[in-house]
Amino acid sequence: MEGAAKSLCQSPGCSMQVSRIMRPDDANIAGNVHGGTILKMIEEAGVIISTRHCNRQNEERCVAVLARVERTDFLSPMSIGEVAHVSAEITYTSKHSVEVQVNVMAENILTGVKRLTNRATLWYVALSMENVNKVVEVPHIQYGSPEDQEEGRKRYEAQKLDRIETKQRSEDIILPAINVDRQRKEPYTVGYSQSSLIHLVGPSDCALHNFVQGGVTMKLMDEVAGIVAARHCKTNIVTASVDAINFHQKIEKGSVITVSGRMTFTSNRSMEIEVFVDVDHVLGRPKEKASAVTAFFTYVSLDKEGKALPIPMLKTQTEDEKRRFEEGKTRYLNTKAKRMAGAQKDQ
Amino acid sequence: MEGAAKSLCQSPGCSMQVSRIMRPDDANIAGNVHGGTILKMIEEAGVIISTRHCNRQNEERCVAVLARVERTDFLSPMSIGEVAHVSAEITYTSKHSVEVQVNVMAENILTGVKRLTNRATLWYVALSMENVNKVVEVPHIQYGSPEDQEEGRKRYEAQKLDRIETKQRSEDIILPAINVDRQRKEPYTVGYSQSSLIHLVGPSDCALHNFVQGGVTMKLMDEVAGIVAARHCKTNIVTASVDAINFHQKIEKGSVITVSGRMTFTSNRSMEIEVFVDVDHVLGRPKEKASAVTAFFTYVSLDKEGKALPIPMLKTQTEDEKRRFEEGKTRYLNTKAKRMAGAQKDQ
Amino acid sequence: MEGAAKSLCQSPGCSMQVSRIMRPDDANIAGNVHGGTILKMIEEAGVIISTRHCNRQNEERCVAVLARVERTDFLSPMSIGEVAHVSAEITYTSKHSVEVQVNVMAENILTGVKRLTNRATLWYVALSMENVNKVVEVPHIQYGSPEDQEEGRKRYEAQKLDRIETKQRSEDIILPAINVDRQRKEPYTVGYSQSSLIHLVGPSDCALHNFVQGGVTMKLMDEVAGIVAARHCKTNIVTASVDAINFHQKIEKGSVITVSGRMTFTSNRSMEIEVFVDVDHVLGRPKEKASAVTAFFTYVSLDKEGKALPIPMLKTQTEDEKRRFEEGKTRYLNTKAKRMAGAQKDQ
Repeated sequence: MEGAAKSLCQSPGCSMQVSRIMRPDDANIAGNVHGGTILKMIEEAGVIISTRHCNRQNEERCVAVLARVERTDFLSPMSIGEVAHVSAEITYTSKHSVEVQVNVMAENILTGVKRLTNRATLWYVALSMENVNKVVEVPHIQYGSPEDQEEGRKRYEAQKLDRIETKQRSEDIILPAINVDRQRKEPYTVGYSQSSLIHLVGPSDCALHNFVQGGVTMKLMDEVAGIVAARHCKTNIVTASVDAINFHQKIEKGSVITVSGRMTFTSNRSMEIEVFVDVDHVLGRPKEKASAVTAFFTYVSLDKEGKALPIPMLKTQTEDEKRRFEEGKTRYLNTKAKRMAGAQKDQ
Repeated sequence: MEGAAKSLCQSPGCSMQVSRIMRPDDANIAGNVHGGTILKMIEEAGVIISTRHCNRQNEERCVAVLARVERTDFLSPMSIGEVAHVSAEITYTSKHSVEVQVNVMAENILTGVKRLTNRATLWYVALSMENVNKVVEVPHIQYGSPEDQEEGRKRYEAQKLDRIETKQRSEDIILPAINVDRQRKEPYTVGYSQSSLIHLVGPSDCALHNFVQGGVTMKLMDEVAGIVAARHCKTNIVTASVDAINFHQKIEKGSVITVSGRMTFTSNRSMEIEVFVDVDHVLGRPKEKASAVTAFFTYVSLDKEGKALPIPMLKTQTEDEKRRFEEGKTRYLNTKAKRMAGAQKDQ
Repeated sequence: MEGAAKSLCQSPGCSMQVSRIMRPDDANIAGNVHGGTILKMIEEAGVIISTRHCNRQNEERCVAVLARVERTDFLSPMSIGEVAHVSAEITYTSKHSVEVQVNVMAENILTGVKRLTNRATLWYVALSMENVNKVVEVPHIQYGSPEDQEEGRKRYEAQKLDRIETKQRSEDIILPAINVDRQRKEPYTVGYSQSSLIHLVGPSDCALHNFVQGGVTMKLMDEVAGIVAARHCKTNIVTASVDAINFHQKIEKGSVITVSGRMTFTSNRSMEIEVFVDVDHVLGRPKEKASAVTAFFTYVSLDKEGKALPIPMLKTQTEDEKRRFEEGKTRYLNTKAKRMAGAQKDQ
């Protein structure tokens, strides 16, 4: 049982692995596994490894709660019957947060072929089990080299800055009224494809504590984004990437989550969808100031051979839609430029 | 889709919408979504909107519990990959109950085509969170016109009468012994297709409180009815309609539900199945008087093009079976007559 | 990412690990994870590792199908929020079968405590993807020592003998008629607690091929056995052990599985339940000769501190019931004797 022995977590390289066969319910009708299924598995590995780590030296029992996910790319779609292997490792700790890096491999157990499908970086904070509003200190890990630690510190500072910024911004967000009366809408407009779903938070969404696991929320966000994308292009779609998502508020068991999506930008071969999450404490408490999680999902459309199909251009109608389209274009060009720079560096 | 436009909940017309892609596990092997999946979604929308409403003006925290579902028709089967949109609206409130009307649309997001698949009416009562045996008063909604209110009042009185009647009747019901030794039974008899399942009530069946949500029970009832229908005709079957169901008793987490079904009547193109629900409080308490929920499900069989297939006639053997067949025939003819009257009025 | 590198299967010790947080839906109302949840995870690890292995040297694509599970003990119950780590390793191969040994550890990620909860041995055969009735040859593994190989060969011969025997026996089994009319039954009799469920096989039960994964069947068997046990003693129950189970027939997608259980024996602190599985090919084909999988599950009842509670004695009424009680007693005493012999050897 070497595998078992390995999973005993030893600092610095706390690591663990979650594996599972992809089932029909994990996939769309073309057999491509939903990005949301992968995001949920990634977060499950993250919450296990960081909760385990935070309790190592603490007297006070605590649980890790997802604070942020960095931008992540889906390198190739997974299929029903393949085995997803999600490996997570703690790569940095600050006083109050844990960075987890995750690799996802898809294995075709019939051909033996394995390929990397995702890399993701997640940030967790530890909350006390006795008092869920209290942030607990995180034990430090040991680094392979001072450079590793310094690199981690830089990543930590960068994400911290971004978190503060989006928190301020999110307080200004007015959640859009997503109107589903699409029948009188013109195809390819924003109004035509925008969509919204609600989910009643049940016990199995909250296994470790009384709050929704971040992965559950991400799965719902991907589901809405996917419906928006399919409505726009009317062909088979898969998640290509997710921009960084910050989680500023805990969502309690028994709440109703409303997740809404609208298309913001299309390039020749991709669609960008903005997703909003709103929480409604159905039972009791008067509605607090709207929590607005927002994120950008990018989708592509694939034919049966897995080749990217052209995307019909989004028809913007209002000034706001035109502005968001331009902002999306800027994000698109920035990402493209970064990817090309990365590719050159690799050579 | 007026309901959708109103989805910002403002009295008088509190409304909301639940949307979800239909997955392989929601459907039978021919790809037709189970009626039970739809019934469960309908009830989820109902419980959210009515719980939210009842907590609006109450000091006392409360949850809405399903008391009754009116007869509902399944106008056309839904398929895997389609998006189900369930729109719910509060249409009447009495002192202690809430009427919710629900529309279900199926959207093929590839073709953009939407069609109405169901209309349903549900009645909820609000129970105190502190004391689940205490019925709480319901805040009133504002009506568009005095006529709307008067119509609602009539619907309220009619269902109240029916509830009282069936409650009395249900106390007399002797639950049938459903024998699973089918091997020596003759095909097309009642004994050949009758079926029974048990379900241990788990946490996800009870998201808002410690009682099974009505939708869960309806899904199990549809599951048994579907198996009875398939065993009889051995071809692809779909739910065509469900008669009104009254819920007289709360079912607690940890109970075992036994759901049994037997065929009562066949016409040329339809099968009627009577379904019984029995609750067993496994842990602790001695068994109370059996609560007997009963309902009639009507199924049709469809070929690959969605055309109704002929149904083998039910072979009745005992006097009771012959009597139930005649009663089923009366219900069938009544419904047919009503539908034809309705169709003429529409012209 | 050492974990990832490890999971590349290299003969002789092909190994892999499946991990997951235990959720409320995996557990009973007292928070104890169902034995069936564990059995399903064990089988998932087994089917992955053996399918992967069988395709290594084969030109012909094939899938591993569960043929047998050896007797397995549940050493301590798992709880919601704990992480189950299931490690599987191929330990023997014959010409046509693969032996997989599995260890299950429960980890409390808050305290860091890990404990062994199960050991299991599974046997798989490989079927061709093109022709599911064709058994494919299995590549050989390399053994650490000739003794290892010899030990494996002995285990192989022993299980083969048992498989042939039970196959003959199962053809004679007459499936019992499980009567759900329990209301007139006397408590503590066989008839009082016997139970039966039906399950319509859906796509997610069959991820790798068009047949039910063995783990799905075992989970249903444990579910029925647990309900029988709870109905008998009316206190919190957990799976203590499962006797060897042989799977003689593939179960196709779209079938209806009937799983029935009846109590056969009680000791002071344990209950033995016999479980029958029957398959009904609802669609199309005339019903073939009944395949009868049978197995014995042993349950204990635990109080809040996890201490075993006394079990009310089973009241046997018919000659058959008395005979089965004596047979159960023999199995119970044999197992007890073996366990004591094992304990002495360990000293």
